[in-house]
Amino acid sequence: MSDPRLPSWRDGATRDAVTGFLAAATALPPAERVAVFDNDGTLWCEKPNYIQLDFLVGELIQAVEAQPRLADRAEYRAVLEGDSAAMAAMGLEHIAFSLIELCDGITPEEFDERVRRFFDLARHPERGVPYSGMRYQPMLELIDALRAIDFSVFVVSGGGTEFVRAVSEQLYGVAPEGVVGTQVAYRLDNEDGRPQLIRTTELVGDPNEGQAKIQSIQRVLGRRPILAGGNSAGDAEMLEYATANDGPSLALLVDHDDAEREYAYEGVAGTFDAAEPITVTASRLGWTVISMETDWDRVFSDP
Amino acid sequence: MSDPRLPSWRDGATRDAVTGFLAAATALPPAERVAVFDNDGTLWCEKPNYIQLDFLVGELIQAVEAQPRLADRAEYRAVLEGDSAAMAAMGLEHIAFSLIELCDGITPEEFDERVRRFFDLARHPERGVPYSGMRYQPMLELIDALRAIDFSVFVVSGGGTEFVRAVSEQLYGVAPEGVVGTQVAYRLDNEDGRPQLIRTTELVGDPNEGQAKIQSIQRVLGRRPILAGGNSAGDAEMLEYATANDGPSLALLVDHDDAEREYAYEGVAGTFDAAEPITVTASRLGWTVISMETDWDRVFSDP
Repeated sequence: MSDPRLPSWRDGATRDAVTGFLAAATALPPAERVAVFDNDGTLWCEKPNYIQLDFLVGELIQAVEAQPRLADRAEYRAVLEGDSAAMAAMGLEHIAFSLIELCDGITPEEFDERVRRFFDLARHPERGVPYSGMRYQPMLELIDALRAIDFSVFVVSGGGTEFVRAVSEQLYGVAPEGVVGTQVAYRLDNEDGRPQLIRTTELVGDPNEGQAKIQSIQRVLGRRPILAGGNSAGDAEMLEYATANDGPSLALLVDHDDAEREYAYEGVAGTFDAAEPITVTASRLGWTVISMETDWDRVFSDP
Repeated sequence: MSDPRLPSWRDGATRDAVTGFLAAATALPPAERVAVFDNDGTLWCEKPNYIQLDFLVGELIQAVEAQPRLADRAEYRAVLEGDSAAMAAMGLEHIAFSLIELCDGITPEEFDERVRRFFDLARHPERGVPYSGMRYQPMLELIDALRAIDFSVFVVSGGGTEFVRAVSEQLYGVAPEGVVGTQVAYRLDNEDGRPQLIRTTELVGDPNEGQAKIQSIQRVLGRRPILAGGNSAGDAEMLEYATANDGPSLALLVDHDDAEREYAYEGVAGTFDAAEPITVTASRLGWTVISMETDWDRVFSDP
């Protein structure tokens, strides 16, 4: 039997847990119906690269066209040559921060425009479709089902806040103020008497992973979730936070176990409990694990 | 002639500026229709005390009932005895921070409950009405008129973020994620295995005044306003920011010039240009000044 609200979800215990939660949540005041979702690997595909990394590599290619000597920098050379050994030696985080420097000194409006242009033109390197087609269709259906019963739906990403905000309305129907991710610091420029924010390369606080996700939910969104969806150790605290109340709650963990239709990989170990795979954490703590292979009849959305 | 959208606004240049802006803004994409309002003195009355200060004094009175020795602290004694000379000597900010310590160590849920209880029970010390009746009716009408043409309306307060969020939906129809104010830091507690945020007495960043308002608009709301309303020097940067674009924009300054129906006082000098009254700044920079006495037919809303 299919559920008309969740047509891409197969019959089974996972969908039953979701529909059971939807039914129970209607007993709560609407203000308490709050759902938060991680983005990379939870709402859209994060393989073979984080989409934001593909964006930054595109920025690098354009920057090098204008200033060829940029290619001499070790980090950039490794990226441009696809030298994965050199990249691994430097570390992905170091590479990412070096790439983010390419957006130093621009306005949030210019950054927003660059991200939108990227989404207009870029294609997934292996599937050849626009990134809008790399969203998970079952998660979009879940978001719709939540909104149909007056849930507020937010995106709590480890990625850059403004990167996600640039497309969150278009891709998920989530307004910019409903997104929080890692936050870059701005300085205020007052050239020609018009105040204007300018991106820096500093972060405000920690990258938005682990405990930082709980803090940023409070600071930026101001609501306590009763549903949290994630897929990696950086989401674990947020999932625990969503279930730490006496009423109905749901912690959903997307398990990437579908090598054929998506990718098969273990949730990244991280801040929560590096000693165990995240799916083991999930069963220990009573989270609902979504097996992409078993529970989803269709994986990707239309572009 | 009255305007059916703005029945409490009198005919005149101020209302014309507002309605002219409303008409012009409909030519913009809805995503650009963004309005931000200061709270104290702009959406609700800030005299004789900031409402949040009245809340904190109430907290103090309850705390002293439970722990009488708290009254020995110089700051608290000055407040309890209404010793305005002592309070002035210590400074309002110092007093406020000492009072905020009374909320140290509680959860955001408990804080929210305390604020709601205050709004249920407290009365304005001079008018005797619930604080919900101290909102400015013309501003509520403006918010409704903005929403009628698909504006997103946000509150950008110098007060505590969570204090305003506790009542923003009820008083202004603004969801918690649409409010940003001064932000208190939280620590994460994990007693009995359930993650829980706990208030501290530290701030995250600066108090939300002046340039900090522009920063927090970007960080928390993620949208650039084209209308900003304020009443004091702490709002000046935000008003400038809203008008620093080439399209339609409106900076509204509430001038408290109505001793009979509200209060008459000069906008506080502050971070922007302490050398001149804020109404002079307004006319120098082309902001629209709302004379409470002249432009508003009715001042306060129903409770």
